Amino acid sequence: MRITYVYCLWVILAGFRAQAQVPLPTPVQMQWQRAEYGVLVSYDLHVFDGKPYNQGQNRITPMPDHQIFDPQQLDTDQWIRAIRDGGGKFAILTVTHETGFALYQSEVNPYSLKSVRWRDGKGDVFADFVASCRKYGILPGVYIGIRWNSFLGVYDFKTEGTSEFAKRRQDWYNRYCERMTEELLSKYGPLFFIWFDGGAHGPELGGPDILPIAQRLQPGAIFYHNSQRADIRWGGSESGTVPYPCWSNYPFPYSHSTNQAVVMANDFKLLKTGDPEGKYYMPAMSDAPLRGARGRHEWFWEPQDEGAIQSVDRLTRMYMGSVGHNSTLILGVTPGPDGLFPQADADTLKALRTRLDRMFSRPVAKISGEGPVLEMQIPKGETFDLIDLAESLPEGQRIREFIVEVRDRGSWKTVVQGTSVGYRFLHRLPSPLKGDRLRLRVIGSVGRPVIDRFAAWSSLD
Amino acid sequence: MRITYVYCLWVILAGFRAQAQVPLPTPVQMQWQRAEYGVLVSYDLHVFDGKPYNQGQNRITPMPDHQIFDPQQLDTDQWIRAIRDGGGKFAILTVTHETGFALYQSEVNPYSLKSVRWRDGKGDVFADFVASCRKYGILPGVYIGIRWNSFLGVYDFKTEGTSEFAKRRQDWYNRYCERMTEELLSKYGPLFFIWFDGGAHGPELGGPDILPIAQRLQPGAIFYHNSQRADIRWGGSESGTVPYPCWSNYPFPYSHSTNQAVVMANDFKLLKTGDPEGKYYMPAMSDAPLRGARGRHEWFWEPQDEGAIQSVDRLTRMYMGSVGHNSTLILGVTPGPDGLFPQADADTLKALRTRLDRMFSRPVAKISGEGPVLEMQIPKGETFDLIDLAESLPEGQRIREFIVEVRDRGSWKTVVQGTSVGYRFLHRLPSPLKGDRLRLRVIGSVGRPVIDRFAAWSSLD
Repeated sequence: MRITYVYCLWVILAGFRAQAQVPLPTPVQMQWQRAEYGVLVSYDLHVFDGKPYNQGQNRITPMPDHQIFDPQQLDTDQWIRAIRDGGGKFAILTVTHETGFALYQSEVNPYSLKSVRWRDGKGDVFADFVASCRKYGILPGVYIGIRWNSFLGVYDFKTEGTSEFAKRRQDWYNRYCERMTEELLSKYGPLFFIWFDGGAHGPELGGPDILPIAQRLQPGAIFYHNSQRADIRWGGSESGTVPYPCWSNYPFPYSHSTNQAVVMANDFKLLKTGDPEGKYYMPAMSDAPLRGARGRHEWFWEPQDEGAIQSVDRLTRMYMGSVGHNSTLILGVTPGPDGLFPQADADTLKALRTRLDRMFSRPVAKISGEGPVLEMQIPKGETFDLIDLAESLPEGQRIREFIVEVRDRGSWKTVVQGTSVGYRFLHRLPSPLKGDRLRLRVIGSVGRPVIDRFAAWSSLD
Repeated sequence: MRITYVYCLWVILAGFRAQAQVPLPTPVQMQWQRAEYGVLVSYDLHVFDGKPYNQGQNRITPMPDHQIFDPQQLDTDQWIRAIRDGGGKFAILTVTHETGFALYQSEVNPYSLKSVRWRDGKGDVFADFVASCRKYGILPGVYIGIRWNSFLGVYDFKTEGTSEFAKRRQDWYNRYCERMTEELLSKYGPLFFIWFDGGAHGPELGGPDILPIAQRLQPGAIFYHNSQRADIRWGGSESGTVPYPCWSNYPFPYSHSTNQAVVMANDFKLLKTGDPEGKYYMPAMSDAPLRGARGRHEWFWEPQDEGAIQSVDRLTRMYMGSVGHNSTLILGVTPGPDGLFPQADADTLKALRTRLDRMFSRPVAKISGEGPVLEMQIPKGETFDLIDLAESLPEGQRIREFIVEVRDRGSWKTVVQGTSVGYRFLHRLPSPLKGDRLRLRVIGSVGRPVIDRFAAWSSLD
């Protein structure tokens, strides 16, 4: 009896899967997409040196003195409140970046907070950070840089030199990276996101064997990324946007740690666009530094850089071009050498949140449902200038082509025609439209479309 | 009147100097020679790994886990008491050796005691060591290893690789060595000995600029050594002895950090022998590990190595072949992973001291004086088997050739003929001699010989 029941369930589920042969997201991938936007908190020794950050130079120049790490007023609660008040849903800390210095109490990496005078060698920025995230309901993530290490002489994953010494240091360094990863993934509770800076390579490329550690210790986290696996992919730019269309499907299990000639060709086209027929569910990340205006592009705090904070207009367009293109936005923020989240940056995030709240405060019309056509009434006298679509996430990306039409004075006309919807499709119109009915027609799909949201907004913007 | 007096004094002193044109020791060089024997305490991570120490492999293989440093019962008082009871007068600690790990609270080198669980990251073996030395009247010294660093990828002073990155790491590493040296020479009070493992190179060889730091912070210490200066020289072997003669004079201001084709030719002949006409006062060190018997030669503790402790007979011969050849003996000792000086090693040092105390408990005859001939009475019925000579140290090595003769039954016969005396000349006779008078005749000297001690002993050995 029970066997028959299980068998029937299997037949039903198999039939359902057969019907919609698209890759499906894991729970944490859905959580990632629904978060819509979060931050990468970049913090490293050179925040404290008072000099401009030059990545190319810094990668090959060890820091003269790590005792400069001295954020006297460090207050991660203040950071995370700024992020929460700015509407971010997750926060990822650069626990190690390219200097090799680690912002935690490491028993593996001595070049860490154990070795500084600050807080008498007992400080743990990552512990504070995670505690603040949990306090304020922000999902915590860890960013681990192992590709570059100016302290240990590692460049693009490789220990310097070609001698037997270099080979042994490579083996040792790979174990060192694995052991740091074990520490970070086991001592700070469940993490939302594990980000390996420039990838974690992979054993088959001569790198550390990170993936089994992540799978064992943080099975519920987004893993990003090595040559074996990526749960999200880089969106191919640091512009905070992806082009349209941007599919959640991808032809490979990795983002861009390997096979780079293919995945990075044509200005990272595959990373940007994905592939509707790809067998792997791997939504795109759109990342950009908050301090990226006026020709600057700064992930790390530098003196007199507040003028480089992006405008709220620009950030809103980023949101439209990332979240609205089925991608997740990551803004890079950087606390100052005093240990505080700068007020100007906090104010900007707050203003972005206010803007988005206003844009999405009240839909002109909104509906959900299944099937190829959804139609809804537009309240009399209302106009709209923003189309908002969402597929049901657990079903994957089924829609391949759609059209949104409005009926105005008895005749239907196209509002927008598109391909990818996925988590969210946002489209602003050049000017407000009016009409009495709005219709979504799915022209192409793999299986039956399931629409979580078909909405029109008046963005007031 | 006063001017005339000063002038006369100058004439007298200048005449004295002109008379004896030999290089003269500094106060600390005299202290070094008068100490006669001390120890090098070797302690590093591989004491804790339970494996045989293989220097060639260890130099190119970083330690997998520095948390193995865990000397639970560490007691430097117990170390230094063992050294004092063994007759050692100074003790030098390998504060950094070839792993790169540092046995102190360093703000420069994070790979140090700040980074280990042991004593909650607050332990400082060097501070304890220096305090124990002062408590027990032992002269403390520091041994700083910068030539090899398996952690940072440094081999024979050079950072691995040939890229611009390697060049910058070299610059950084040189500053790092200078800054560690500044810490060690400024935070632990006056030190007797500053030993750079394999030399500190020198700026003109692309190494750090160590010498000005040592001169500024520890002007009263023995500096050993770089390509610019050495206050003592290596004696050319790790046998605990030097051949005879071994002059305190040396033709170069450095030991063997540079000009190696010359100074190391013929099995290190110049280092072993020195040069009576050399313009630099630089007495030789004779070093050997205490655990150097039965084909072993171990500076570092290893399991089951107590059988390799040298016999007291052998150590006594070492003393004769080092101190008795105008050199200073350094025995290498190594505390165990428990943090204690092993009892068997302590017992051996104690037995050596007992032996030497017995040998030198009562002279058969002893005299001092100036001039080419010193003669003394041998008490009736006494025999002797050990000749002991010492020049007055502050005057430098003046004697170039001498003969010791005994008068037995009315006729003088040669006991021993030699060249170098310096701090000490010890010569054991194959069998006890008798006679009524003993005579030292200086056959050749630079200036008037000044003899601090002309003695005969009955070694009872």
